[in-house]
Amino acid sequence: MKKPLILVTNDDGIVAPGIRALVEVAATLGEVVVVAPDSPQSGQGHAVTLREPLRLKRVSVFEGIESWECSGTPVDCVKLAKHVILKDRPVALCVSGINHGSNASINIIYSGTLSAAMEASLEGIKSIGFSLLDFAFDADFEAGKPWIRKIMAYMLDNPQHIGNLLNVNIPAIPASEIKGLRICHQANARWVEEFVEGRDPSGQPYYWLAGKFVNDDTRNDADINALEAGYISIVPSMHDLTHYNALPEFKALEKS
Amino acid sequence: MKKPLILVTNDDGIVAPGIRALVEVAATLGEVVVVAPDSPQSGQGHAVTLREPLRLKRVSVFEGIESWECSGTPVDCVKLAKHVILKDRPVALCVSGINHGSNASINIIYSGTLSAAMEASLEGIKSIGFSLLDFAFDADFEAGKPWIRKIMAYMLDNPQHIGNLLNVNIPAIPASEIKGLRICHQANARWVEEFVEGRDPSGQPYYWLAGKFVNDDTRNDADINALEAGYISIVPSMHDLTHYNALPEFKALEKS
Repeated sequence: MKKPLILVTNDDGIVAPGIRALVEVAATLGEVVVVAPDSPQSGQGHAVTLREPLRLKRVSVFEGIESWECSGTPVDCVKLAKHVILKDRPVALCVSGINHGSNASINIIYSGTLSAAMEASLEGIKSIGFSLLDFAFDADFEAGKPWIRKIMAYMLDNPQHIGNLLNVNIPAIPASEIKGLRICHQANARWVEEFVEGRDPSGQPYYWLAGKFVNDDTRNDADINALEAGYISIVPSMHDLTHYNALPEFKALEKS
Repeated sequence: MKKPLILVTNDDGIVAPGIRALVEVAATLGEVVVVAPDSPQSGQGHAVTLREPLRLKRVSVFEGIESWECSGTPVDCVKLAKHVILKDRPVALCVSGINHGSNASINIIYSGTLSAAMEASLEGIKSIGFSLLDFAFDADFEAGKPWIRKIMAYMLDNPQHIGNLLNVNIPAIPASEIKGLRICHQANARWVEEFVEGRDPSGQPYYWLAGKFVNDDTRNDADINALEAGYISIVPSMHDLTHYNALPEFKALEKS
């Protein structure tokens, strides 16, 4: 039987340990093609490159696996993978990550990792963004691997759902402490921003984004709370940003 | 009575005619502060600048109006406006645009204009992204102005709604042909991508994103269809991407 084609991408760049861990898992389930950024692209959200051309280079990064690096954003990688590299080859699954750091809650909208997965889902491809709650370059991705494989296998084995995009976050705890998978909603949490202000060597002022994350959402099935309880959180996600509950109250505007 | 403080930003850059039109309208309703990118930032989505510092410069672009240009993305502009420039001054409304070109339907996730508005809404600030369906630099923003003023006044005059973010698109037609405002949902439409392939002067290949937009959504209250019928579309929007309808079908994963 022909193995399913799995597209792998990320936002930390093609040499990040997180994508290597994901490629290793994906290769046990299908034929893998990697198309990933040639440099770190964290925080790129759903950015696309419109004002300049993109570069694409076949590289040897993963043994025996077709790999390409791209000069653009994670979303650019998925577009190029689909329309230039893979063309008519049907993609069974797109996986993005494993991100170094959390993409739980509102981080989904800032995250290149999840935006790449969302772009694939817009193309009708089932897709999953994976993130480990550890920013370190040498983060330990081993504990999450069996769970990642289980989620990928579930998506490959089941027919297209009404939801075809999952945001998966993995707590940075030993394998023995992971309690299981929990289907969650996006926690209602937020960044409390601050900027580090300084002067560059020529005396000019600069501002550098910092900030801390605050979670006011106390529900058990909010992703952040599931993670803190030792579960791997899975948030079925979508790209329709319409606030349907708010439609009626704005109807008055039509008559104003 | 103290005039409400209105923050104006965009993604086409501080010298774009669209933001000038928006500033002119906003100045009739409140005290305006402009914080906008120093260069075009179309397609930046919800990108934030994490890996380098940001620059902020007080500029004289709009007569009698406090104006700042920023080296970052539209979302960076809103963060800097709130946390560095305005600090404790309460912002009554944030308006972003007027974008040169449509941000209807799925364009909301690629759009720097709308991402800036969404960032303000995340901070609890009522916000509106405005776009005109004309990409031209010398697009005519006059016909939309009375309607923009009406929508801004409505948001200023009414208490916080459960929805505090509007995606407003304006058809590029003469004032006499605009039929009114219509509350809509995001049309289920998509980009059919293609890449222009070429060779640079040194003979290296490049890929440049192109594509056309396809709308399969036939509902009257889909934003694209309202626009085609001559209405200004208003989509109340939100940042919770959870696919609530898909939660039950993924519950099986928890037991797998």
